[in-house]
Amino acid sequence: MQHTIHRHHHHFAWDKSIRPVHEIDPGSRLRFEVTDSSAGQLKPSSTAEDVARLDFDRVNPVNGPVFVKGAEPGDTLEVEIAGFGPQNWGWTAVIPGFGLLSSDFPNPYLKTWDLSGGRAQFTDGIEVPIAPFPGTIGTALPEEGPHSLVPPRQNGGNMDIRHLTKGTKLYLPVWVQGALFSVGDTHAAQGDGEVCGTAIEAPMDIDLSFKLHKGKQIKEPQFETPGPLQAGPPGRGHFVTTGFGTDLLTASKKAVSYMIEHLTMKYKLSDVEAYALCSVAVDLKISEAVDMPHYLVSAYLPLNIFK
Amino acid sequence: MQHTIHRHHHHFAWDKSIRPVHEIDPGSRLRFEVTDSSAGQLKPSSTAEDVARLDFDRVNPVNGPVFVKGAEPGDTLEVEIAGFGPQNWGWTAVIPGFGLLSSDFPNPYLKTWDLSGGRAQFTDGIEVPIAPFPGTIGTALPEEGPHSLVPPRQNGGNMDIRHLTKGTKLYLPVWVQGALFSVGDTHAAQGDGEVCGTAIEAPMDIDLSFKLHKGKQIKEPQFETPGPLQAGPPGRGHFVTTGFGTDLLTASKKAVSYMIEHLTMKYKLSDVEAYALCSVAVDLKISEAVDMPHYLVSAYLPLNIFK
Repeated sequence: MQHTIHRHHHHFAWDKSIRPVHEIDPGSRLRFEVTDSSAGQLKPSSTAEDVARLDFDRVNPVNGPVFVKGAEPGDTLEVEIAGFGPQNWGWTAVIPGFGLLSSDFPNPYLKTWDLSGGRAQFTDGIEVPIAPFPGTIGTALPEEGPHSLVPPRQNGGNMDIRHLTKGTKLYLPVWVQGALFSVGDTHAAQGDGEVCGTAIEAPMDIDLSFKLHKGKQIKEPQFETPGPLQAGPPGRGHFVTTGFGTDLLTASKKAVSYMIEHLTMKYKLSDVEAYALCSVAVDLKISEAVDMPHYLVSAYLPLNIFK
Repeated sequence: MQHTIHRHHHHFAWDKSIRPVHEIDPGSRLRFEVTDSSAGQLKPSSTAEDVARLDFDRVNPVNGPVFVKGAEPGDTLEVEIAGFGPQNWGWTAVIPGFGLLSSDFPNPYLKTWDLSGGRAQFTDGIEVPIAPFPGTIGTALPEEGPHSLVPPRQNGGNMDIRHLTKGTKLYLPVWVQGALFSVGDTHAAQGDGEVCGTAIEAPMDIDLSFKLHKGKQIKEPQFETPGPLQAGPPGRGHFVTTGFGTDLLTASKKAVSYMIEHLTMKYKLSDVEAYALCSVAVDLKISEAVDMPHYLVSAYLPLNIFK
């Protein structure tokens, strides 16, 4: 019988003083009922006005913490992504002040997705392949007190790595007694970079299996993913924009801006729609990190999202 | 009859005053006999000592320039990567002062590859899939005088984009009359990022077809690649290290360092061998660019390179 960590067993900070909601032996498997990253503040009927009214003290909840018996600092916790429950709906928002191009997009925007048919339709003719993963997954930090869930850190956390899909084995460093594992922020789909700041944010159940590697020490999370790295039907190729810059951030911003231009011109999307589509479907790659004084970042648009 | 731009028709800077070696109509196809990025300074029998003696005034030559009739500033030159001649040998070097981790790797290193059998064996048990592309490809810059070929710019240049493989359509902005197109720096294989500073640098012929899009203006290069993005046999998955940082460069360096640690521990490579293997086979992705104050970069090792 698999134990479930229910929806209300969530918390809003990494804090090793938070009392565990459950205790497991290595080798266990758990189900987590994960709410969306707005903690229920947004609903299928919500609008951009509701995005502007979000209470940021109640975002990005994670379920847990789970105490893993025998886990000690210097061990590695292996978490296998065993599977996901169905996704019924999701949302993608542009939140003022947040996102790679926040100065270009000062206004709130919200797209809600009906995922109940197992498909994520963006507009007529554009469908994003569903490839669920947890955006935030990690262990407690060694430092005292509460630490924001927003940035990723040496405990994992809000890594937003889109390849933590089913079958992936994630290795997390253990920093405190019992590891104090938590997971949340499930996404139905996302591009590498999550450029507008949100993915297809979707509540869903997630099943995880735990193993403990005693005395195996890693400095930051690692994982093994079975692939393929690209979701959806193969064989359509990619359209790619490039941006050079004296730093990787400038290069990234340019590549995404050019992709937004391309999407608005070729597919008649509005600027903000194109930005949101980049966030859920376009991948940022570091093409070149050595040819000084310029770096090159490329934004890859998978053509299998178009009918 | 397809015209050939021969090996000796190369130059060592972007400079619009360099006299074209050939003139074509849009719709033409050309073969370029590309020398390696050392311009013949390194040979299959070379050693690390020869890397230390490289004359940097004679690196990264490009063949051309080719004058495209009718091309004017504000147009876009489309270059289709039509095919590659055979690769006989290649080299991968760590050049002191150059590369993402140049402060960790101060000494010269050279690996030469026998590619004549159509395979790139790194060590016994590690084979890198061959996927040739031009590292440097571009048009002349609008500014007067010579400009280094090392950094990528708004004309393309040394972009080192590993997906400019056969069948790719590359779109280059035209900045001067006739475009003045050149290509060089052919690579037999490379990972996204080219972290040690060199790929499998290999002389080879490359066939290119040219089209001109009058009045279609782009700010930096774009391309459409038929994929798949991953070379070699599918289905083996990836092992991935992650690095967070307050900037993307720090995050990139950490992710690569962790991958080097992994490769040395698991596959018994030396540090510098692992660094070189990362450069030719490991891909850098921007996993997360929005969860401030931390960015997350991941280094993806394709497991299909191991026997």
